[in-house]
Order: sequence, then structure tokens, then C-alpha cells
Amino acid sequence: MMYQQGPLYLEDLSPGMHFAAPEWEVTAEDIVRFGREFDPQAQHMDPEGARDSFFGELVASGWHTAAMVMGMAMRSEMQMTGGQAGISVDRLHFKRAVKPGDTLRLDIEILEARRSRSLPGRGIVQYRWFCHNQHDKAVMDIVATALVRARDDTTEPPDKTD
Amino acid sequence: MMYQQGPLYLEDLSPGMHFAAPEWEVTAEDIVRFGREFDPQAQHMDPEGARDSFFGELVASGWHTAAMVMGMAMRSEMQMTGGQAGISVDRLHFKRAVKPGDTLRLDIEILEARRSRSLPGRGIVQYRWFCHNQHDKAVMDIVATALVRARDDTTEPPDKTD
Repeated sequence: MMYQQGPLYLEDLSPGMHFAAPEWEVTAEDIVRFGREFDPQAQHMDPEGARDSFFGELVASGWHTAAMVMGMAMRSEMQMTGGQAGISVDRLHFKRAVKPGDTLRLDIEILEARRSRSLPGRGIVQYRWFCHNQHDKAVMDIVATALVRARDDTTEPPDKTD
Repeated sequence: MMYQQGPLYLEDLSPGMHFAAPEWEVTAEDIVRFGREFDPQAQHMDPEGARDSFFGELVASGWHTAAMVMGMAMRSEMQMTGGQAGISVDRLHFKRAVKPGDTLRLDIEILEARRSRSLPGRGIVQYRWFCHNQHDKAVMDIVATALVRARDDTTEPPDKTD
């Protein structure tokens, strides 16, 4: 794999490029705190009550896992100049429950990187965030599209406008 | 629109059914707290630093908005017996930035509800979570699929197994 370091512009990205990210330790306290605020189901708040749930034990909310993946991605080697702005999540699969004590790992792969045809100085990047746990089991698979800055801030020819 | 109240099973859901949810007030403190943990970009942490970002001001992380949408959905009238477990997010569009002082509103619409062909007593439901702000502007549009409980816990005939 080819790893790149930021701060980066659109022109530094190309399909097939990978970026590393720091690991993320998952605690029961974090799971319960997120669950109480955003996903108040027994399996995300209460180890006792979780026994009668689909999971049978305390697990992280899927949206908590997505937020942790975002937390790793934003601390990864893919540091875009001026940050990035999400456009869409094109696919997200909850592959496996995340439990207290898990260590999450993230691989970022660039799927597409192109100029925006309507916004001068902007690029559109589609990437895959593939997250697995300490046992190398997949926990979340996300394909998403975001707006980034281009080094060249001219606009594409008008016949390519989208 | 037809509104239903729980606790519900798969058999209580049908396409076209809508569920109401409580509103959600967005504060600058919540935006910054989520941003620091999961999306440490200037536009989600620092009103000053946000001026040079894509948004020009403090806005909620898109994943924070998704979590707030989940928070509303889990407190909605769509209360499933034994809760639910996410399978996939089939589509998610970040339509508009969420700002401090916004009030979010959510409409839940059932798109599909069917028996699981492999899991006895389980159902697969696809729904749309459409979130707008106090100005009736769309902020997030999610289509997702989840596992729920069926009242009838027999298994489908084996020729339909998936």
C-alpha cells in the first residue's frame, strides 16, 4: 500500500491510494454515554437489560461506531488543506457489533478524485473507510463522498458544468 | 399521514406508514463537544477558526446530525418490541448545515417491511428518516435497513430461504 501524508489538496489524491489512521480504544463508559444521548436502547446503555436484546450484551450503537470511524479518519494521514465537507454516504454496512475493550483500526482508500465542475477550486473525492477490530474482523464498511480543496482554483470549462 | 404508536412488531408496519418524533434543540456546546471527540475540524470546534472553513461559521459535524436523527428516531412513536438492530444505511445525504439554535424535526416513513427468510421471528424493515430544520429546510435524508422482531416467530418455508 502507498501511504501519503498531509496537508493535501485534491491533486494529491488518486484512486487506489491508502491512508493510515490511529487506533481507537472502545470503553463501556463511552458506549453508555453515547447510547444515553443518541441511541437509548437497552443494548447500548445497560449490561443487564442488554441480555434480552438482539445482541445479548452491551454493544456500541452503530452510529457511535460511525462517529468513532469519523474520529479516526479526521486524525488520519489524510489531512486535507482547509478540511473537508461531507456530501453523501453512499453505502454503510454494520458488519459486526463493537464491544467494550475492542480496539478499532481504520484503512482509508481513495476510490475517485475529480474536479468539481460547478465550484471553482473545489474537488469531489469518494473514499472507502474500512474498519476492523483487534481480531481483524470487519466491523464497518463505509463509502462516502466529500468536498475538498483543489490547489488549482480555476474553474472547469463551461461545457463540463454539472 | 397515518401515525402509529408502539410497542410494535414487524406485522404492525407497512409501506407508506409515518411515525412522528420529538424535536431536537441544537446547542453550540453540543456541537463543540461532539466535534472535539469525533470530528476535530475548525468548523465543528471553534467559531473563530470556522471562518476560513467551507462553512464560514460553527456547524454540526454531519455525523453529529446523523446521531441526533438517531436520537429522535429512538424516541419516536416507532417503538419496536425488543428494539432494533441496524443492518445498513442505504443512502445518506447531507443536505444543509445544522447550526447552533436550530430545532430539528424528523419524519419516519416505512418503505418496506418483510419477514427475514433466514432468521426465525425476525423482520427486515427499510425506512426513510427525513430531517428538516425550523425553517422547513431539509438537513438530512437517510434510507436505512434494520432488523426487528416479528410477532409470528415461525420460519418462512425453506424454498424462500435467503
